[in-house]
Amino acid sequence: MANAFVTQPPPLKDELDIVIPTIRNLDFLEMWRPFLQPYHLIIVQDGDPSKTINVPSGFDYELYNRNDINKILGPRASCISFKDSACRCFGYMVSKKKYIFTIDDDCFVANDPSGKAVNALEQHIKNLLCPSTPLFFNTLYDPFREGADFVRGYPFSLREGVPTAVSHGLWLNIPDYDAPTQLVKPLERNTRYVDTVLTIPKGTLFPMCGMNLAFDRDLIGPAMYFGLMGDGQPIGRYDDMWAGWCCKVICDHLGLGIKTGLPYIYHSKASNPFVNLRKEYKGIFWQEDIIPFFQSLTLPKEATTVQKCYIELSKQVKEKLSKIDPYFDKLADAMVTWIEAWDELNPQGASQANGKANGKA
Amino acid sequence: MANAFVTQPPPLKDELDIVIPTIRNLDFLEMWRPFLQPYHLIIVQDGDPSKTINVPSGFDYELYNRNDINKILGPRASCISFKDSACRCFGYMVSKKKYIFTIDDDCFVANDPSGKAVNALEQHIKNLLCPSTPLFFNTLYDPFREGADFVRGYPFSLREGVPTAVSHGLWLNIPDYDAPTQLVKPLERNTRYVDTVLTIPKGTLFPMCGMNLAFDRDLIGPAMYFGLMGDGQPIGRYDDMWAGWCCKVICDHLGLGIKTGLPYIYHSKASNPFVNLRKEYKGIFWQEDIIPFFQSLTLPKEATTVQKCYIELSKQVKEKLSKIDPYFDKLADAMVTWIEAWDELNPQGASQANGKANGKA
Repeated sequence: MANAFVTQPPPLKDELDIVIPTIRNLDFLEMWRPFLQPYHLIIVQDGDPSKTINVPSGFDYELYNRNDINKILGPRASCISFKDSACRCFGYMVSKKKYIFTIDDDCFVANDPSGKAVNALEQHIKNLLCPSTPLFFNTLYDPFREGADFVRGYPFSLREGVPTAVSHGLWLNIPDYDAPTQLVKPLERNTRYVDTVLTIPKGTLFPMCGMNLAFDRDLIGPAMYFGLMGDGQPIGRYDDMWAGWCCKVICDHLGLGIKTGLPYIYHSKASNPFVNLRKEYKGIFWQEDIIPFFQSLTLPKEATTVQKCYIELSKQVKEKLSKIDPYFDKLADAMVTWIEAWDELNPQGASQANGKANGKA
Repeated sequence: MANAFVTQPPPLKDELDIVIPTIRNLDFLEMWRPFLQPYHLIIVQDGDPSKTINVPSGFDYELYNRNDINKILGPRASCISFKDSACRCFGYMVSKKKYIFTIDDDCFVANDPSGKAVNALEQHIKNLLCPSTPLFFNTLYDPFREGADFVRGYPFSLREGVPTAVSHGLWLNIPDYDAPTQLVKPLERNTRYVDTVLTIPKGTLFPMCGMNLAFDRDLIGPAMYFGLMGDGQPIGRYDDMWAGWCCKVICDHLGLGIKTGLPYIYHSKASNPFVNLRKEYKGIFWQEDIIPFFQSLTLPKEATTVQKCYIELSKQVKEKLSKIDPYFDKLADAMVTWIEAWDELNPQGASQANGKANGKA
């Protein structure tokens, strides 16, 4: 690898939380036990608070249902989605750790081509601990991986890279397709294990999936808002996408990196394409305006923190996307509420959005 | 794959030329015989014209040495490098085919992880025949490969993609490192077979290596100029890099795509790092100005053909890079000479650079 950046061991228990949006499948935690049991779990129950989630013994966890969210956030709980896995972002907010790994309960442990079980968490941490290279593409992919480096013609001044804020992992078996593609290709399975990690270049947007995702909460946490989905909202299945587009433009602005590729998980179950189509169809055409909005968006240089960037972004959403649908007006307000709630629960990192300096760069 | 774009068979003999800069190694063509013998070879001899190159029987080829180049181009032969593999671009100019595959004589047939010999040419053609997606990143990589598609959140309006102009292949065994990296890591070998192809996003530069490269001559040929290297020039080993940066900004401007990844070749022999350092050292620091130049470059909307773009680029090179070194003044002139020579040898595609409309878009 290019440099000995990765000298630290994987983070200890007090540096990482696992955030899971409900657990419907009891096999899920058993399968992940060898990898996840050392860490603390934050489970955010997305539906009926009266239902009980049985967490197998041996796991260290805290569980929040809707009543807990309402109690903790008060009126600001309105920014957290109900009856949708988008509620998971509440877990990002209440965590006090540096790193978050979030995973869906239909994601099992994948095997690499040699048949070895993939420790997804370990790979995410490797991705996050070494730099990203968003300013120039390296044809041998992540130059910080073992056995790789920067190739001939890569400018030396760019080889230090930038801090990595997000690690986006992929899925074997059921690919993350939209409803139209699910309907057209119901039998398609992803069997190709692509042994690589790469940085999404600066200025390029990507579809961030929340199924198998890790990030540095200190670097990008306040932008990891999963929006308003599910109960009472006109749209679903765009929670992670929205977060990804917001994160990407903010990372580009602040000089942070996003990696995609390894690790794989095994995605066991396709969601119902008919239900998905109902959730998605507005998003599918709204997106045709949303993407140009994000592609042309610029943030002012005064926006030097994630919170300031996010508040600025919310203003531009209100100004430029509200004409698509009143939903975006509501979403822009929820984005502000989210930052207020984040800063309330994370007072050390708070207030940049409101211009009160408190020493956190 | 996303769509049945690839319905054509691989191009027939009359659609593709193989361009090789000298052949020092007699094993080279024997090894490639099963894959390359059906096609026409253009060999451009980079050194002493009195030396004979023995091409094994059964190959259909034409061979050009320096005397031939001087005779064909006259005074314009000054734009073709001497005693350097950069001379290969003369082969692009004299070809009359739609596709070019160029490969170095120290590149052998690679094996894929199952042990099967990789037909590099076939994969290049697949890459070139299906669209690129430079406007948005697809996390399952090339959506047009078998078993892949566009993922959830990929805007439907961008799924048609753009025509692919360049297919950049990679190298197992000896990686394409610069001299400093070769010196620091003499034993590093690339053993990782990454089973993917992806589009380099719009606005992102990459280091294009000429070792294993294919392109659509009709779409991008006149920009595939390998500059002034070798005999009498202050720099070497930046021929393919220069061509890559020029091609990338022109592809971005014209709405064309560049893919990288598969196919692999097996790169058998590391070149001498001490010799390489002498060739490279000026490039290594000049590059620190060249990259920002290309990153901030814009082409006028009147530049609607590759030739027009390239002439405009030559003007900007003269204006903005000549202050680094008088070499760039000479290079800018050579870029114009190259286009004049190209248009002379390819009269059908000529003249857009000079504003004479001739019906070729």
